[in-house]
Amino acid sequence: MIIAEIITIGDELLLGETTDTNAGYIARKLSGIGLSVQFKSTVGDSLERIEETIRHALKRAQLVITTGGLGPTDDDLTKKVLVKFFKRQLVLNEQLLEEIRERYHRRGIEMPAINEEQALLPNNSTIFKNDIGSAAGIGIIENDYYFISLPGVPTEMRHVLDNEVIPFLAKQNFGQAIKITTLRLNGIVESSLAEIISAELEIEPGVKLAYLPSESGVDLRIVATADSKEKAENKAQKLVKQIEKKVGRFVYGYDSDSLQSVTGQLLSDNDKSLAVAESCTGGKLGEIITSVPGSSKYFAGGIIAYSNDVKVSELGVKKTTLNKYGAVSAETAIEMALGARKRFSADFALSITGVAGPGGGTDEKPVGLTFIGLASAHKSFAKEFNFGRDRETNRARASYAALELLRKDILDLEIE
Amino acid sequence: MIIAEIITIGDELLLGETTDTNAGYIARKLSGIGLSVQFKSTVGDSLERIEETIRHALKRAQLVITTGGLGPTDDDLTKKVLVKFFKRQLVLNEQLLEEIRERYHRRGIEMPAINEEQALLPNNSTIFKNDIGSAAGIGIIENDYYFISLPGVPTEMRHVLDNEVIPFLAKQNFGQAIKITTLRLNGIVESSLAEIISAELEIEPGVKLAYLPSESGVDLRIVATADSKEKAENKAQKLVKQIEKKVGRFVYGYDSDSLQSVTGQLLSDNDKSLAVAESCTGGKLGEIITSVPGSSKYFAGGIIAYSNDVKVSELGVKKTTLNKYGAVSAETAIEMALGARKRFSADFALSITGVAGPGGGTDEKPVGLTFIGLASAHKSFAKEFNFGRDRETNRARASYAALELLRKDILDLEIE
Repeated sequence: MIIAEIITIGDELLLGETTDTNAGYIARKLSGIGLSVQFKSTVGDSLERIEETIRHALKRAQLVITTGGLGPTDDDLTKKVLVKFFKRQLVLNEQLLEEIRERYHRRGIEMPAINEEQALLPNNSTIFKNDIGSAAGIGIIENDYYFISLPGVPTEMRHVLDNEVIPFLAKQNFGQAIKITTLRLNGIVESSLAEIISAELEIEPGVKLAYLPSESGVDLRIVATADSKEKAENKAQKLVKQIEKKVGRFVYGYDSDSLQSVTGQLLSDNDKSLAVAESCTGGKLGEIITSVPGSSKYFAGGIIAYSNDVKVSELGVKKTTLNKYGAVSAETAIEMALGARKRFSADFALSITGVAGPGGGTDEKPVGLTFIGLASAHKSFAKEFNFGRDRETNRARASYAALELLRKDILDLEIE
Repeated sequence: MIIAEIITIGDELLLGETTDTNAGYIARKLSGIGLSVQFKSTVGDSLERIEETIRHALKRAQLVITTGGLGPTDDDLTKKVLVKFFKRQLVLNEQLLEEIRERYHRRGIEMPAINEEQALLPNNSTIFKNDIGSAAGIGIIENDYYFISLPGVPTEMRHVLDNEVIPFLAKQNFGQAIKITTLRLNGIVESSLAEIISAELEIEPGVKLAYLPSESGVDLRIVATADSKEKAENKAQKLVKQIEKKVGRFVYGYDSDSLQSVTGQLLSDNDKSLAVAESCTGGKLGEIITSVPGSSKYFAGGIIAYSNDVKVSELGVKKTTLNKYGAVSAETAIEMALGARKRFSADFALSITGVAGPGGGTDEKPVGLTFIGLASAHKSFAKEFNFGRDRETNRARASYAALELLRKDILDLEIE
């Protein structure tokens, strides 16, 4: 089995002020193609220490991926180290330089001269193109090891990894297959989920099940390893069937599905439109819905009604409702949804009102209390939720819970 | 200077499913007492690999802190490794056993027998008490190194670190202090920034400058080390002054400041209100603004006008404007801002319309082209931006650029 190691480079990671999300992302993507990470290291912006770390990594791993230190500034040292360590020379890559110029040109900026440095790459290296930034990925591929350096900016790292590096590595024959299937659930907490399923599951050797709670619910991740793709897929599928028998009603999708993509598909399949009215989420629900390219096909628009005045003036919530039940109430949520549906003449409307925190909580209406309203041609209703104490978590959970409510309603599933 | 290394132990950290928050927390606390972490490693639950990692760490660091693997179950291996590696025996710590029993007793639970294992500690070791869990911290302190193992559960790790380990280390005379200052900039790209400042900066020994680009702009992090707190602070301050002389106009804040907190403060200080009209960002700007607790004080609300119909019906954008200039144009952005300002009777309104991508781009209006409009009592205008190709990056950059536009306008700063 090939051993992989990830090295993340940058003082900011050692200072602990920036959380290292790159290493985890790379680990997930590598396991997706049957490669398992055995070591992770982080080193600061120091020539000696980066070199020492790379040397040590190549002693124990056949695949080493580094992130960071490929930028144009003085504290970007990775390329310097590569040239010395792998005994390469830096040569100008005309095509890359052109592309970088072009990118600045598109942004209406004259390319700063310093960026020419970005087009200098080690000879005898594999280039992994970066379409959204100026630091390309660099691969030093020898018979006995694969060494790959990627940019540190997460969006760029992910772009290069997903579009260039993973396809490249997937082509290599590392003689082992891993099938990863993720079931995506919403509306049930991890511990209840574990209680329901964990006991009676039959898990074959070579199969791992992980519970991954997130703001969009809980993902169940099945990692099946075998010596052939087919065997791995069969193992995974068997477990999927067992799980769905027990908790299938909470499963909204698989793998790369998201609640916004699944509900979006349902809306466009049924040629229906959606509007939103957001109080405590302040626009997050709309942002999540429109994170799907082409969502304009079914997303009419929304009102961010953060204040009570706006709830009245823009959504037609009755002053009496606000006075009698308060802004955070089922009654207000329903009127918000009805108002949004009417205003945007949409088929469906979702509304969110809650106590996001950290302040504003009372004994009667504690931080985390949230009402989500839904209005459609046939009916309007609101559901009460009690989320946690963290403001951003509450806002995200509320947004995804709203989408799940819509999904269940469109599919006529029972809402528990 | 003493070199510190952090080792986090656990398979879940290598799969990338669990984000490692312990390492960053420890690094921040150590730098707070003048200790700088130079290496971070993560290793899975394997006797051999844990021992190999510890051996390697002690070769290069005088202070090594590990987290994880101190629990009572079979996959908790750290103590086994310590005993072998440091040639210690496990001896029963009666007092600790009593405390563990007592803790269970208080919760009305009979202590599970498995927990007796927790009271077995290596001889000649320093105990760092854990008042909220049964796994105590273990210190192996010799003349030439400090080795400390802490539990992996973040709440317990933080408790033991803050109350036991940090005070212990602070008492040792390592003779150095660190001051970290972050300048937060928007409206200039990393490479241009580097060109302007890097050349002529006088950076004293013991001072490091890092460029940290993100969706909200570029952060400049200064880390100054000296033998006293005052000296470190002076060193950092000197560099801050130099940088601000050159690029102060791009600096919107320091350290924990964010564009949303800074602009929010400006609005409430001036008793002004803000409304938004969002097309391509679909609510993200509103979400960012309302991520600040108490933002209801100055945030009136917003319209998510994703479709042209809504731009017309909700914001009063003229059909002729849309036909003549298109939805992505300065003219439309301005009318969107004017519409939002009027609708919410706000002092300021921001609007965003752009081609977020991945589709929808043309030669004339490529992906990334974005217009941000601002309307106030005195004027209304729009500024053109050209962001990258990544949809989510564009949406985030546009939202922060809008806040920066507002900040500059309120402060009457020149808008370049």
